[in-house]
Parts: sequence; structure tokens; C-alpha cells
Amino acid sequence: MDLVVLDFKRPDKKLIEAFREVSVASAHECMGRKNYLDPSIHPFYPGMKLCGPAITCKCQPLDNLTLHAAMHIAQAGDVLVGTLGGDPNQGPFGDCCTTLCKAKGLEGVVLDSGVRDGATIKDMGFPIFCKGHSVTGTIKNEFGNVNHPISIGGQLVRPGDIILGDDDGVVVIPIEIAEQTLEAALKRQADEVIIRERFKNGEDAWTMGNYSEYLRKKGYDINI
Amino acid sequence: MDLVVLDFKRPDKKLIEAFREVSVASAHECMGRKNYLDPSIHPFYPGMKLCGPAITCKCQPLDNLTLHAAMHIAQAGDVLVGTLGGDPNQGPFGDCCTTLCKAKGLEGVVLDSGVRDGATIKDMGFPIFCKGHSVTGTIKNEFGNVNHPISIGGQLVRPGDIILGDDDGVVVIPIEIAEQTLEAALKRQADEVIIRERFKNGEDAWTMGNYSEYLRKKGYDINI
Amino acid sequence: MDLVVLDFKRPDKKLIEAFREVSVASAHECMGRKNYLDPSIHPFYPGMKLCGPAITCKCQPLDNLTLHAAMHIAQAGDVLVGTLGGDPNQGPFGDCCTTLCKAKGLEGVVLDSGVRDGATIKDMGFPIFCKGHSVTGTIKNEFGNVNHPISIGGQLVRPGDIILGDDDGVVVIPIEIAEQTLEAALKRQADEVIIRERFKNGEDAWTMGNYSEYLRKKGYDINI
Amino acid sequence: MDLVVLDFKRPDKKLIEAFREVSVASAHECMGRKNYLDPSIHPFYPGMKLCGPAITCKCQPLDNLTLHAAMHIAQAGDVLVGTLGGDPNQGPFGDCCTTLCKAKGLEGVVLDSGVRDGATIKDMGFPIFCKGHSVTGTIKNEFGNVNHPISIGGQLVRPGDIILGDDDGVVVIPIEIAEQTLEAALKRQADEVIIRERFKNGEDAWTMGNYSEYLRKKGYDINI
Amino acid sequence: MDLVVLDFKRPDKKLIEAFREVSVASAHECMGRKNYLDPSIHPFYPGMKLCGPAITCKCQPLDNLTLHAAMHIAQAGDVLVGTLGGDPNQGPFGDCCTTLCKAKGLEGVVLDSGVRDGATIKDMGFPIFCKGHSVTGTIKNEFGNVNHPISIGGQLVRPGDIILGDDDGVVVIPIEIAEQTLEAALKRQADEVIIRERFKNGEDAWTMGNYSEYLRKKGYDINI
Amino acid sequence: MDLVVLDFKRPDKKLIEAFREVSVASAHECMGRKNYLDPSIHPFYPGMKLCGPAITCKCQPLDNLTLHAAMHIAQAGDVLVGTLGGDPNQGPFGDCCTTLCKAKGLEGVVLDSGVRDGATIKDMGFPIFCKGHSVTGTIKNEFGNVNHPISIGGQLVRPGDIILGDDDGVVVIPIEIAEQTLEAALKRQADEVIIRERFKNGEDAWTMGNYSEYLRKKGYDINI
Repeated sequence: MDLVVLDFKRPDKKLIEAFREVSVASAHECMGRKNYLDPSIHPFYPGMKLCGPAITCKCQPLDNLTLHAAMHIAQAGDVLVGTLGGDPNQGPFGDCCTTLCKAKGLEGVVLDSGVRDGATIKDMGFPIFCKGHSVTGTIKNEFGNVNHPISIGGQLVRPGDIILGDDDGVVVIPIEIAEQTLEAALKRQADEVIIRERFKNGEDAWTMGNYSEYLRKKGYDINI
Repeated sequence: MDLVVLDFKRPDKKLIEAFREVSVASAHECMGRKNYLDPSIHPFYPGMKLCGPAITCKCQPLDNLTLHAAMHIAQAGDVLVGTLGGDPNQGPFGDCCTTLCKAKGLEGVVLDSGVRDGATIKDMGFPIFCKGHSVTGTIKNEFGNVNHPISIGGQLVRPGDIILGDDDGVVVIPIEIAEQTLEAALKRQADEVIIRERFKNGEDAWTMGNYSEYLRKKGYDINI
Repeated sequence: MDLVVLDFKRPDKKLIEAFREVSVASAHECMGRKNYLDPSIHPFYPGMKLCGPAITCKCQPLDNLTLHAAMHIAQAGDVLVGTLGGDPNQGPFGDCCTTLCKAKGLEGVVLDSGVRDGATIKDMGFPIFCKGHSVTGTIKNEFGNVNHPISIGGQLVRPGDIILGDDDGVVVIPIEIAEQTLEAALKRQADEVIIRERFKNGEDAWTMGNYSEYLRKKGYDINI
Repeated sequence: MDLVVLDFKRPDKKLIEAFREVSVASAHECMGRKNYLDPSIHPFYPGMKLCGPAITCKCQPLDNLTLHAAMHIAQAGDVLVGTLGGDPNQGPFGDCCTTLCKAKGLEGVVLDSGVRDGATIKDMGFPIFCKGHSVTGTIKNEFGNVNHPISIGGQLVRPGDIILGDDDGVVVIPIEIAEQTLEAALKRQADEVIIRERFKNGEDAWTMGNYSEYLRKKGYDINI
Repeated sequence: MDLVVLDFKRPDKKLIEAFREVSVASAHECMGRKNYLDPSIHPFYPGMKLCGPAITCKCQPLDNLTLHAAMHIAQAGDVLVGTLGGDPNQGPFGDCCTTLCKAKGLEGVVLDSGVRDGATIKDMGFPIFCKGHSVTGTIKNEFGNVNHPISIGGQLVRPGDIILGDDDGVVVIPIEIAEQTLEAALKRQADEVIIRERFKNGEDAWTMGNYSEYLRKKGYDINI
Repeated sequence: MDLVVLDFKRPDKKLIEAFREVSVASAHECMGRKNYLDPSIHPFYPGMKLCGPAITCKCQPLDNLTLHAAMHIAQAGDVLVGTLGGDPNQGPFGDCCTTLCKAKGLEGVVLDSGVRDGATIKDMGFPIFCKGHSVTGTIKNEFGNVNHPISIGGQLVRPGDIILGDDDGVVVIPIEIAEQTLEAALKRQADEVIIRERFKNGEDAWTMGNYSEYLRKKGYDINI
């Protein structure tokens, strides 16, 4: 396999647009409570959101050279997902990289490192999900790979998988189950609208789920 | 003791209202520097505040069933305090639970876990104190207990104890010492208003406390 | 050496003013990627910035007496840099200390502990860099030293060194290399304005740095 | 309630001796997977074990004065359980305290802090469970309480509860459920002897539990 | 893809035996400093070693049901590699599971959780690499998958990849590069024997690498 | 100042030998509870001890080139103290470096990183204090400095300061106070022999210190 895999199948744009209505929590729940990146990876500033296909890269720790190869071949709408090994105190990405990503029309960036130039990036309004602030300088010395499957935040991400991010963090949706996840998540969100209405009208989950009965059957001596 | 203790003594409402003037820092200081929950438990979004009697519950980790029993019996004004064992990467509480708590008039929620649906909850303006964002799904499988004494954030909380939260985190005020703590805290806050005025007029704590003298008596060769 | 060193050379005020144009990231990069405090030390609230000469102190853990000696002799424009041993769950500094520092015209404060009275301090708009919120009470019992070299956030800070803080955290600029760091940082920032323009016009770092060629020379079979 | 509660009911000695056959894992499992102290509290050196009734104390952080009050009133066979707030980098206990505890015939010690004089204590062979090594000095300044209920390692411990420790850490057995826990744990351990024999003879848990069938009923398309 | 992939290509036994001569450090170095699991995954007791092909599984956190499916189909010589999401405070594996694995002739186990029954397992001498001791009970409720690629300790592991463990932790050797890694590692280890001899005879790496010259060319004013 | 400071004053050998009788705990206590490195820096294997003058170096993170310069100029009896910025997951030092240090007669090594080749180094019996095992490869790319004051484990270490290590971790004794610290530590250790005898004979610290009286004077209502 080439160090840089140039081509991969991107999901249909309508699918991506439809996923913009889905929350990270819903997507995670509808995949059997899987595929949520460790929440140490969070929006650089609250309110950031992203949705798009992953372009992946694996860097050596403290070395951002491979990130630049990935930005070189990335396309508008892509979410750049890069692992530097997980140490939060390294700053491989800053306002220059952000300018480049915006110029190329990227959707956003997900890194398992810190990011620098926080105040400027906040003003630029470009969605970055990372482990916090760090200016610890990186070098451009060795190469990893681009568009191979990677491990980031404890999850497997492959190029073309859908990346969804909001205040709660980041979830990866494997492309094979994207359609079914979308459908289930939209249904779940519609169901929750109804549940919230019922809650506002005085019902609660304990009664609706008949949990006293459920627990008695399991042998609990439950008194409510 | 029943798994769910239905009844406990709630403090007088005037006492609760009076405590709204007290900061977490003052209350902690006036209890002999005790009863502050580990600050990994913080407001879900800055600016959240709460004050009210604790209704407590203990859940199995990654299982939110007991939380629903607690919400089932909670009353308006209560602060729901629940332990799931302390792991921040679990999301037992989200926008549906928040809707239910608001409908029932609860004052707020304190959890030693993560919470999901952050952006929505921020808009709803309901005070939650927790360990951050997590959507990691929980199940409804086993039961713990409701309104037993619990250990959370390294402190003991019993039903009816007063829970106070602000940007600095959460403090628990055992009901037996609530009156004296309130009195001492209000006095301390009044004293601090005067101290701050003196500071603005050019005095400082070193001089006011005569600390050079104090240290010389302890044997320090102090040169100021 | 006296426990309290009263006198140290403060850098020229023009130098300080010039450094206000420099970001933490630039300063760190132009010192050979050195002298960045561990980013667990961050602005108490986002948006805080500071720039000034360090006045240093070393306290016993959970004891803020030495901080008051440092505030007693600090001058307008100084940045008070204090170590209490690194534990984030102690709150040696709050709204009274902040009032005193503002009254004396200090530039700001850097601590490797928590800080209390967050909401009030946010309103006062005084720049504090620390490890987060904590009200855990401190005592006034033993003395450390003032204006000796200290170790904080994994870096060495000496009185008179320049302290720079922004959303990315804190960097210390040893006074001997301040002029050359300023010059290099301003040049780097000017260069980056040009680079960002080139990025906006369709170039990228991969091509500009000719990294395909660079990696091939190192023996990589690079395919872009 | 007195600051020092002198008297509490200790469990029958035969009960304690019987519990010496029970592992921490079994006891935890037979209490519905509850009451296990956070495993950051571990044997100071591998192989240490303890079993006995808790005498509890709560100290101020970095202050071991209350520990000495507890040792003053402790009796032979007791397990001294003390909280200093959970910071591992404080060393309130060393070879002198160990000598005292051995002289008084105590069973062992459980602390949520570090401990000092490791090499000497290893030679003395006295069981201590703590968060590791730390010599960070403590003071004797303020008082907490002795034999009140405390929160340690995320669990509630009351005087007279049974404390059990082995390589896996520490579990607390509330005295009200000690008899039933003992019975269930001994039965579980006997059952496991049989299960291990069956495993040695070629069976496994998957087949014995008929889990393929179990999962198919839950809707899984399971292929084994 | 089936939830349980029954069949995968295991590497040649001679290759496995040859790898027993290779250290984790050498293997990591000879793969371009890659594929080392986070060292929070370490031998349960010092001195444990393992070498064999991975059989992989992904469990729900706090649920060990999928581990039992993996043990059900594992073969003699396999290394069982399982992820439960990375939380160290869960104990899905103990002396019963160890008995089963030994009976089936497995080489060892790698988990990103805690493990219970430490003292017994130490006596049994079966190699387990994990995040430490925990008895926190797990359930048998939901299923993940067996022999799919998994992410564990920040690395990607696929069934049939070679797993190597020693006191330094665990490294995964992708099967495609196993032969070349073996050759390079054995060469490296032979080279190091010679280097160590030269060191014993008075040479050092600084002189052998001519690093003064190297740094001067990079612009350093080096004075040795 | 040269990047490599070749010459510094080493303490008298008799002083070093005398310090071998002093424990880390005693030295720390006799310096006013100061100068203890964060205990995340611990003996690589239990039982390791060291005592000698520091030769210091500061490396770039993940780059061990400067360590080799320090080994190049180190002398028999020296303790090599190196900072790589504090990340435990980097392995700049292994069995080759250990062979070199032993050949040169060094006393031992202190690093704020991981170390690799654990099993071999354990057999070699050379004292290393570090943050644990890591094989994560380092490079030889950039230079820091040798024999400048450094910050490591939250403490300041200067060349020639005395480094003392045992199971409890590492303490640095500034050379200016070495004589007085030695004297005080030996006295403290002699006093503790007597105290331990008194403890064996039935006295305890509470009575000897008359702490009931002490606390009553502070206003406590103490009942023992």
C-alpha cells in the first residue's frame, strides 16, 4: 500500500447534509453505544460543530510533516483526522494551518494533540476538535502515512468514514452502517421530542418503563 | 433500610434562600475548610449556580436506572446528587432527563460522571454540575439505592444536606451545621467587603497581619 | 541570600510594550521551542492576556503566606509568579487578593494551583493564569522565599524574566535573550502574514517546502 | 457528636477470622459489585493482606495530627482507615507510625495518601494500603474527626465496618451485611473451584452459559 | 462481516519462535518507532513475557461477554487481545478465565482494563498484560465483535498480527512486515552487543556519532 | 554561558559517603519539607538507591542527543539528571546507555521520562529513577544544554547539587545547605530510633506531644 493513499470513496453529499441534523449522542446510541472518541478530544472552543468524510493521517509524535501531506491532497468538505500518538502537550497545528484548511474548503480538523494560536483560531471560526491548547513546537522530520486506517481516541477511523462533532465531542460512523445509523438516529431524535413532551406533561421514565416491576422480577425488594 | 428512602427532612425554605447569597468559597472556609467536592465536578457550562437540599442516589457504573427512581420521587427545589462511581466517560444524563427535571421544578443536578447533549442543555439553562461531556451510553440493568448517605467527589452527602454550586464547584453543608455556617459565611463576606476597601486604599494583608513579626517569632530571619 | 530578595532588575518598559504584539506560540518557537509552562497552567477564563516582568515566590503547599509577602513588595506592571508545589486542588488566591493586585497596578498573576471566587474574578477582568477552580482553603503558617529562581510548570523562572500569557498558556522569556526573541518573533509573525496570504492564494506548505523531494532523499518511497 | 467517638461496636472475632478466607474480588462480587475502594489505593508492596474492623479518621490535607489521635485510641486487631482528601503526594505515615501500630497490635492501615520510608516498612512486613510513595512532609496543625463515617476512595466507611485488603486493593463490608456476604463469598469461591475443574476438563463459559442462544433472543445475528 | 470472524491466517510457528528472541524495544525501533501500545498496558506482574498471534475482540465497557466468545474459539498459542474501552477500573478477567486460557494452551492475554485475583494469577504464572488491578465487577449483557480490527492502547491490532510483550509493555507487529521486522531486530540486537562492548572499552556514542560536528553544521555553537 | 558547561564544583567525597546513611524522607524533612521531586519519578525497580552530585542536562522532548553529550563529559560517581519535558511515554535510555554509564563508573541516572529495556537493566543492577517503562523511540536531532540549572519533577537542580534516591523517590540537596542538612538528618534519624523504642514500650505521639492540650488552646472541644 502506498504511504499516501490518494483515492478513497467519499460518501454522497446528501448523506453528509442529512447527518448535520444528528447529534453526537444520537449517532453513538444508534450504533450500539460504540465509536465515540475519548472525550479528551473536544471542541477547541464551545459551539464548534463539524460533519464530513474523514481523510486520515498518522504522524510521528511531535512531528507534523504528515499533516501537511494530508492537507496537500484533501478536498473541500473533508474532515482531516490526524493522530500524533495522543500526547496533549504538542502543538502541530495553528493559525497558518487553519488558514490553509479554510482556503481549501475543508470542513474541519480532529487531532489527538493540542493546538496553538487559540485566540486567533476562535476568531476565524473554523471547527477544530483536539485535546486543548499547546504551543509545544513540532518538527518536520519523519513521515507516517495518509489515508490508512488509524487509531485515534481509542477508535478506528478509516478514510471515508463520516466524522461528526459537537460540544459533546466526536463520533465516527463507519461508512457501511451510515445509512442505517442516520435513519435510526433521526427516528430516535423524533421519539425524544415526543418523550420530552410527555415529561413536560407530568410523566416520567420510571413509570413509562415500569421499572418497579422489572426490578421485582430480577429479585429486588423495591418499595416504589 | 428500604432501597428507596422516600422521606427525609428538607431544610426550611428561608434557610435555602439565605444561602443563595453565600459563595462556595465562603461556605467551605466557614466549615473549617471542609466538605468541598473534588473540583473535577464543575459547572457543565460557566455561570451555572444552584442551591437546595440533596436527594441522593447511588447507581452502578454505566447504569442510570437508579437516577430515574430518584427523579421519580424528587420534589420541586431538590438538588439531585448521584454517584456512578466517578468515571467521567459515561453519559447517564442528557436533554430528556433535563426536560424531566425542569418539569418537576428541580433546582439542579450534581453527578460524578459526564453528561451528554451539552449544546442543548446550555440553551435550556438548567444547572448541572458534572465531570464534563460524555455521550458514552449507559444501560438500565441493576439498581443501587436512593436517599442513603453516599460518597461523591470525596465527600459524604446525606439526603437533606444543603448543596451549593457556583463556578468554583460544589460544596455540601451538613444540615446540623447549616445555621452556624450561614451566619459565619455572611459575616465573612461582610468582612471581606471591608478588607477589599482597605486594599483599595493602599493597605495589604502582610502589614495588616503583621506577618514579619509572626515569622520572626517562629525563628525565620525575615528581612521585610 | 535573603529569604526575600527586594531588588531585581526589571526590563525596560518599551521592551515590555513591544512584547504585547507577540503571541505565546511565536515566543516559544523563537526560543528554540523552549520555556513554555505546562499547559495545565491556563487562563482562568478564556481571553485573558498578560505581559510583564516576573516577581517570583515559592510557598509551602496549601500555605499562601509567602504570596502575601510577594504582593507586599510587588510594583505596578509586575507579573506575580508563584509556585505552591503544583497541586491544582488548593485555592490560595481569590477576590480579595485580586482586589489588592489591581489596587497596586499589577499586570497579572501566574500560579501552579487552583484559584477561588471565579465568577467574581471574571467580572473584575484581572488576568490570572492557574490550574483551574479550587476553593480548598490554605493557611498562613510557614514561609518559603521571594524573588529566588523557582521551578513552575516544568520551567525555570527568575525575577525579571518576561512572562507572556494568552489563551495558549504561559511562556517565560529569560531576560538575556529577550531582545533577540522579540526581534525573531516579530519577524516570524510578519513572515506568517505572508505565508497565510500565499495559502489563501492556493499554495500549501507541502509544495513550498518541497517535502516530497526531502523525504525521497531520506529514503522514503513517497508517491506524491 | 464528639469530635472523637471513643466507642463503637467491633464485629465478632470469629467473623473476622472467617473473612480471612475471602478474596477482595469475591467480597465485592457478593455485595452486588459494590464497596470497592478506588484501586489507586493498593498494597504498598505486593503480597500485603489485611482483614479487620475499621477505625476511621478524617484529617485536613497535609496534616496528620488526627491520625495520631486515632492511633491513640485504636485497639489490637483494628484497621486504621484515614482520609487526607485524596492527594497521593503527601507522606503522613512512615516507619515511626508503623512501629507504633505494630506495638499496639493493629492489623493494618488504609490511607488515601502516599506513605514514606518504603524500604524500611517493606522489611517490617506491616500491611499498609495507600496511593504509593511520597515523603512530602505533613504538619500537625488542625483537627478533623475520629470514628465518624468517612468518604475514602469513593466509598463510605463507618467505624466497625470490615476492611479486607489483598493485591487487588481494598473492599469495605458494611457490618449489617457482613454475615450474608461471608456466606455468599464462601459459596462463590467453592463454586469457582468446581468451575475451574470443568475448565481444566475442556468446558468453557460460553457453552456453559449458552450465550449464543441468549444473544439470539436479544436480536443478535450470532454465528457461533 | 460476521460478528465473530472464525478464521484468520496465523503466522508460521517458526516465525513466532524466532520472535521470542526479540525485545519489545527492538521491534518498536525496527518498525520506524511505531506500533507500541500505550505503556499504561503493562505486565500484571514484572517478568511476564508473551509472543504469539492476536485473536482480537471488542467488548462493551464493563461487559465481558465478548471475551468469553473469543476464548471459546481461541487456539493454543494465541494471544487474546481485548478492548473494553480503556477504563482501568473494571475487572473482566480473573483466576477462572486464567484457568480456562491455560487449559486451552493460550500464550497470554492483553486487555485495556484492570484484572482481578492478582495474587492467584501471579502464582499461576500465566502472562497477562493490562492496566493494573481492579475487581470492579463486569456483566454479561451485550455483544461486540471477535476478530475484527480493533483499536487498543492507541494502536490498531488485527487478528493474526504478532503480539510481543515484556517488562517494557506490548508491541504489535503487523503480519505484512513481520519478516522484515524480525530480520532488522535481530541485526539491531547483534549490533548493540558490539556497541556495548565498545562502550565497555571506553568509547561513547557522542564520539562515535561525531555529534559535535553534526551540531556545528546545524549552526550550534557547540564547545565539546 | 557555553551550551555545555564543562566544569563545576563537585562536593567532597566524604560528604557523599556520609549522605548514604540518610533517607530521602529525612533529607526532605530537614530542608523544611522542600526539594522532593514529584514522586512520579521513582526507582525503575524497587530497591534501587543512589547518592552523588548532579550533572544536569536539558533535552528537547523525544530527543536524547543532549543526554549523550552529558554522558560524554560525566565522571565516575556522578548522577546524571536529565529533563526531556516530563512526558512519561518516551524511552530515551536503555541497556546500551546503561552499559556506557556503568563503564564510566556513574552512580546512577534520574530522568523525567520513561526508560526501555527494563528486564535487562534490572539484571544489570544499575540505579535508574524515572517515570516507568517506555520504548517510544527518541531521535538525535536538536541540542539543549548541559550543566545549566534545570527544572525537573517540579524542583530546581543545579550541577553539583547532591541527589539522593531510594524507594520513596528522589530529593535534591542544594550544595550550600548540604552540611547542615546532613547534620540535621543524622540527628533526626538518631532521634527516631529513640522514639521508636518509646513506641515499642507503650507510649504514643499523641501523649508525647500533649496534643489534647494543644488543640484545646486553639479552641477545639477535644474529648480525649
